[in-house]
Amino acid sequence: MDLFGVLHLDELSHGLANLSMFPYFDMAHYIVSVMALREQPGALEVSRVSPLACWFSSMLFCFGGAVLSGIMLAEPPVAPLTNSTSVLLASVIWYLVFYCPMDVVYCCAAVLPLRLVLSGMKEVTRTWKVLGGVTQAHGKYKDSLLVMIAIGWAKGAGGGLISNFEQLVRGVWKPETNELLRMSYPTKITLIGAVLFALQQTHYLPLQKHHLMLLYTVFTVVNKSRMMLTGSSASPFAAIESAIYKTLFTGYSPYAALTGEVKNACIDNGTTTRTTSAATTKESSESGAARKHTPASPVKGQSESLKAKEESENAETTSCKKTN
Amino acid sequence: MDLFGVLHLDELSHGLANLSMFPYFDMAHYIVSVMALREQPGALEVSRVSPLACWFSSMLFCFGGAVLSGIMLAEPPVAPLTNSTSVLLASVIWYLVFYCPMDVVYCCAAVLPLRLVLSGMKEVTRTWKVLGGVTQAHGKYKDSLLVMIAIGWAKGAGGGLISNFEQLVRGVWKPETNELLRMSYPTKITLIGAVLFALQQTHYLPLQKHHLMLLYTVFTVVNKSRMMLTGSSASPFAAIESAIYKTLFTGYSPYAALTGEVKNACIDNGTTTRTTSAATTKESSESGAARKHTPASPVKGQSESLKAKEESENAETTSCKKTN
Amino acid sequence: MDLFGVLHLDELSHGLANLSMFPYFDMAHYIVSVMALREQPGALEVSRVSPLACWFSSMLFCFGGAVLSGIMLAEPPVAPLTNSTSVLLASVIWYLVFYCPMDVVYCCAAVLPLRLVLSGMKEVTRTWKVLGGVTQAHGKYKDSLLVMIAIGWAKGAGGGLISNFEQLVRGVWKPETNELLRMSYPTKITLIGAVLFALQQTHYLPLQKHHLMLLYTVFTVVNKSRMMLTGSSASPFAAIESAIYKTLFTGYSPYAALTGEVKNACIDNGTTTRTTSAATTKESSESGAARKHTPASPVKGQSESLKAKEESENAETTSCKKTN
Repeated sequence: MDLFGVLHLDELSHGLANLSMFPYFDMAHYIVSVMALREQPGALEVSRVSPLACWFSSMLFCFGGAVLSGIMLAEPPVAPLTNSTSVLLASVIWYLVFYCPMDVVYCCAAVLPLRLVLSGMKEVTRTWKVLGGVTQAHGKYKDSLLVMIAIGWAKGAGGGLISNFEQLVRGVWKPETNELLRMSYPTKITLIGAVLFALQQTHYLPLQKHHLMLLYTVFTVVNKSRMMLTGSSASPFAAIESAIYKTLFTGYSPYAALTGEVKNACIDNGTTTRTTSAATTKESSESGAARKHTPASPVKGQSESLKAKEESENAETTSCKKTN
Repeated sequence: MDLFGVLHLDELSHGLANLSMFPYFDMAHYIVSVMALREQPGALEVSRVSPLACWFSSMLFCFGGAVLSGIMLAEPPVAPLTNSTSVLLASVIWYLVFYCPMDVVYCCAAVLPLRLVLSGMKEVTRTWKVLGGVTQAHGKYKDSLLVMIAIGWAKGAGGGLISNFEQLVRGVWKPETNELLRMSYPTKITLIGAVLFALQQTHYLPLQKHHLMLLYTVFTVVNKSRMMLTGSSASPFAAIESAIYKTLFTGYSPYAALTGEVKNACIDNGTTTRTTSAATTKESSESGAARKHTPASPVKGQSESLKAKEESENAETTSCKKTN
Repeated sequence: MDLFGVLHLDELSHGLANLSMFPYFDMAHYIVSVMALREQPGALEVSRVSPLACWFSSMLFCFGGAVLSGIMLAEPPVAPLTNSTSVLLASVIWYLVFYCPMDVVYCCAAVLPLRLVLSGMKEVTRTWKVLGGVTQAHGKYKDSLLVMIAIGWAKGAGGGLISNFEQLVRGVWKPETNELLRMSYPTKITLIGAVLFALQQTHYLPLQKHHLMLLYTVFTVVNKSRMMLTGSSASPFAAIESAIYKTLFTGYSPYAALTGEVKNACIDNGTTTRTTSAATTKESSESGAARKHTPASPVKGQSESLKAKEESENAETTSCKKTN
């Protein structure tokens, strides 16, 4: 591209493309991932009760992408374990973050400037992982754009996509939410990256690979830093998303009506329960159970459940005091 | 077979066996599958909140069999995505059923005569899928009748067998029920088909493949039409099942005693709750939730939970008005 | 080793190593596994309501290790079904244990001396399964100690490790507990075995294979017999575990503080509940069950939930009367 030539960015993009992730960037990825696990509600308790479950959870945070893309391509999900050096490095970091005397490591890494640098480095690894997934899928299924996107996405955002099952390892089960129902920012940006790299790989996108790598990396790092510094979780794509949503997915819109109905039903229910009195205990208990399980309002529960997670994801600016 | 010769059914069965499923029969399968998803409680809400989760759920309804049989044979579960035409077709149908302006497509397809034709065509695809699974397993494991049955069943009834995980995508979790605990009619008929085709493949059943295809297809189509027209969900195998059950699985029968106990426990429970007071509504509602999770009575909860599903499965005669 | 020579144990260990597991030891494994399933709460009910779900659950108890290690190595999880003889044998045992007229088989097998012998024989199969897993992984991933341990462990203790999903087949879902969060004795001893055999395979452990097999088998059989005779569930490694735990995993210990908080919350809760009325004890205990699903305290809930399981695992001395 001419623009890259003019701005003398060609060497920079080549330099970036030849950068090795191991060991420094990988290390940053492991630290940020394990810290994200530690900030999940209940994770500290689990780390005291069962170090093994905690370690396994950490490995899923660190290597979730490789495990998920392995399963999707029918390759052994234990394959990440064969890379002893990476597993050892991740395990040492897991140990230091959770069990270091005086909690020195976590407190240091949680200081804003350091955390900012580490998170930026972790974002860099995302580019490599997404590209790795897309290339791997391209090698197996030459022309399938969809498979490339799926594998690139899985490899880059695996930890998030399998979070339901990662939580299960820690004894936590939140079926009412998952990354497909309500995507977090990292999952979204990874999906966009997977689409871009898949389009580049199939030559639909007239850009060279190292140029796209530079652009995508700069975008993710800058955006992550901005989000951490301002403490905002606003997606930079909110406007586009909203426009797409309004254009494509409103259709005949029975949703407003439905919500109204559900609300009315709930009010009716409440009234009935209240007026009938003691004899309805059994029914109300069942309606309570039903209400818990009714698919009618998984969406309501979501927002609350996700809030905790989002806070922990975005609360990277919180100081160490909070956790003590 | 002489009978086939006498009845001049030989050409018919040959013609049927050479029928191509793509595009019309596949299309009917996608339409009926996506409509079944749309009729699941809560599915419409999910379609508004997260089109991606809704799309993924639809793909599991349409390609669940291929995904499940892929996992069981250690073949890539992303393989169905490589068939771009099918995925595109299914996606277009998903979009039209959920988001078409004025809801035209769903309303048209839900009209009884059209739905009857579409459901009949979907039943035809079942024969092809079961046979495909049995043949695939036969190619890999020459003599294993059990594997053939398992893969044929998985391919034909995959959407139902993985329904727990399909629901999880939509934020719904109903652990107290699954297709093994209480089989629906489509799962049952698919299992019978898998057994028959596996026996035919291993030459235990003295029938030619195209004859069996004709017989099985006619049976499934006629039976499905009958069930839709009469609105009954009675299985045609109820008598045989009951006889087998009574002969084989009653043994020393501690079940009667057990049920009695459970019933008593429930009554006791109810009494206790009733006497306490009106203020316990919240607690009792929670105890209701707890009772659903106790392993002691998964069976009771089932019937209620399954009712909703069965209704949506069999309520194919309901007009469009109901959902507006 | 000299010691083995001196004690004339060389022939014995060679003899043991050449022992065939089929059919007697396999049969003992199936009987003990199916009986363990039958003693799970709710399993008898499921066996009456859905023989198919019960059969599938039994197969997961019997072949869970092969299924799990198959998935981990991206080999077909249906592979165990290809061994028709084993599946047939396990199915016959499943039928006899659950549906035998007069419940003769279960009652006989539950008599202490016979159960002791069967359990001892089942422990012998553990050695073979662990070794099989380690060898299989060694063939695929020459130098990866971690993969060998993982596959050996999965093959030897698969039924336990996938118990969450095995329970799901029966309509039971207990997310608050799993074998990683709180390991049962069989899972622990299998992990130790996997580590030892992996070390032996990679020549870090200066022992010959048949000697290690003898030592490990004797240890597991003796220990299991001791536990069954004394009725104790105390792990023989409790002291070592405790020492390792105290040395490595106490770190800065925010856990005490956390537990305190949880305790206070519980007390507060209790008070509130208590003030509402005296008769709500039952409800509050059940609401406690509901609270179990909150991610905040998976650890508390665990102990109770696991108790039932452990009891059934260790209650192998209970006579037949209890279940009638």
